Parts: sequence; structure tokens; C-alpha cells
Amino acid sequence: MSKEKYFEERKTVQQVEESISFAPKFDKNGLIPVVTTDYKSGETLMHAYMNKEALQKTIQLGEAVYYSRSRKTLWHKGKVSGLIQTIKEIRIDDDQDCVWLRVNIKGGASSHVGYRSCFYRSVPFGKLMKGKTKIALRFTETEKVFDPKEIYGDSHNPTKL
Amino acid sequence: MSKEKYFEERKTVQQVEESISFAPKFDKNGLIPVVTTDYKSGETLMHAYMNKEALQKTIQLGEAVYYSRSRKTLWHKGKVSGLIQTIKEIRIDDDQDCVWLRVNIKGGASSHVGYRSCFYRSVPFGKLMKGKTKIALRFTETEKVFDPKEIYGDSHNPTKL
Repeated sequence: MSKEKYFEERKTVQQVEESISFAPKFDKNGLIPVVTTDYKSGETLMHAYMNKEALQKTIQLGEAVYYSRSRKTLWHKGKVSGLIQTIKEIRIDDDQDCVWLRVNIKGGASSHVGYRSCFYRSVPFGKLMKGKTKIALRFTETEKVFDPKEIYGDSHNPTKL
Repeated sequence: MSKEKYFEERKTVQQVEESISFAPKFDKNGLIPVVTTDYKSGETLMHAYMNKEALQKTIQLGEAVYYSRSRKTLWHKGKVSGLIQTIKEIRIDDDQDCVWLRVNIKGGASSHVGYRSCFYRSVPFGKLMKGKTKIALRFTETEKVFDPKEIYGDSHNPTKL
């Protein structure tokens, strides 16, 4: 597969912002950030990265393929856990440096911790924080969809400190 | 304001993933990616970055304050255009290296190009791309909410090639 399959060269701001030319911008590490939301609920499920090959494969397969920065390899989401993300829509933003995926998830979970969304805690703000300097997060999901130990066993946790 | 106001040190994976401790991870450039969605429609509006100060100000004000990588300065969204983003909810992800903002936008637009969402074009995939190597984007919004020239005049377009 040609490395540049699907992608146009970025030539002008007009082309990138206002045309039908697909000219995604990969950063100096060859990556583009990806926002993945649930097609039905609209909930933000995860934020990850793709390299050119991951984006090409996602477009071909209709399933989300990311690039794992911790494992430095393509990451076909759900191949281990079974929680495949089926693409319903792919969007690109104005300056084409971010991809938005709208997906259905088999099994309903997207966080390696076991929750439906990776964003299972909220941060207090505004009036709630008046005069305060310490924050206590609040859990927005109370039950895990799966037990990570059952799915992943003792494989390495991707979270870096 | 102390630079570390609100933020805890990242000590263990358990603390970061499973506790109420707010310990966001800023990358080597001091930035954390931010996904902003519309509180009512769930639509993804934009993807941007915050540094520590921007996140602290966002929490204090209850309005989105980003860090502009092109202008290298804090960016109180809407201060020029009037399209202020009022925070309804702030979420943090499992490994605390991404922020999700749920906002209401005064005026209803979030893209500097004039559209409601920055993600106003979709990318064909799967069967639609079978045997094809060229992509034609499809516009998902047909009318701009505002005319960028009226709002921003001749100020520099932030899009980089």
C-alpha cells in the first residue's frame, strides 16, 4: 500500500479549510490526534493518535485502528478485548490536524480501566471552586463494564506516570 | 496564583486511574489536549490544547481558556469573536492526559472558518472506498454561522500548512 494513498499534499489554506481535498496534517512524530465519540449517545469515549498507516487502515476497514505511542505499533482497537469500534462516520477539522470518529462499540466499553468511556470522572469548576485550591474528582460512572484483569490478564498497563 | 494550584503530583497508576486525585499530565511542551463538545447536541466542536495556567483559569472562570500554539499565548475563546464557551462539565480521562469540555456557545459557532463545528467535513470509508485511492471530502454543514472577515478582519489565519 502506498504510504500516501488517500492523502493530498497541503498546498494552501483555502485548499485545507474550504475544499474537498483530504490533506491531513501529521505532526513531527508522524501522528494526528483522534477524538472518538459514541455514535448514539454522543459521549466522548477516548482520545488517541493515528499515524498515516493507522488512518489508511481505519478508512479501508471501517474499524478504528490507532497508533499506540506506548507500544510503538498499530493498535486495532478491540482485537484483544473484543471491543471493536465500528465506524459510523469520520470527520476532519478545519485545518485538518484532528480526526473525529463516531463509532459503535461491541461490548460497550472503551477504557482499559473497564469503564464505558475513558472520561469517567468530572472536575468541579467555577462557583464550586471559589476559595478552594484542592480538587476532588467525582466519578460519573459507578460500575465497570468489564474486569480488566479478566480481559487483559497481566499485560502491561498503558498508563504512564 | 501558585502554578500548581488544583493539581496533584502523579505518584501511582492506581491514584491516576482509580482515585479522586486530580493529577493531569502535561506533555514535554507543557500542554494537555482538550476535546470540546456541544452540551446539548453532543457534537464535537473543536480540539485544542491547554497549559497549566489555561486549565486553572478554565476551572476558575467556568469559561474555556485554551493555549494557542500558533500565537504562543493564553486564548480566552470568544474574547475577540464574542463566541464565549460556557462550561457545563469538565471531564478528565483514565490516565489524565486529556480533558473533555462540555460547553454552551454564545452565538453557536466554534470554527474560525465560520462553521458551527470545526468538524464540518466527513471522510468516506469502508465500502465507499473499495478500489479507490482518492478521497473527496463531503461538507456536513452548508452554511456558515458567521463571516470570518467581519469578525476577525485581516488578523492572521491560525491554520498552518
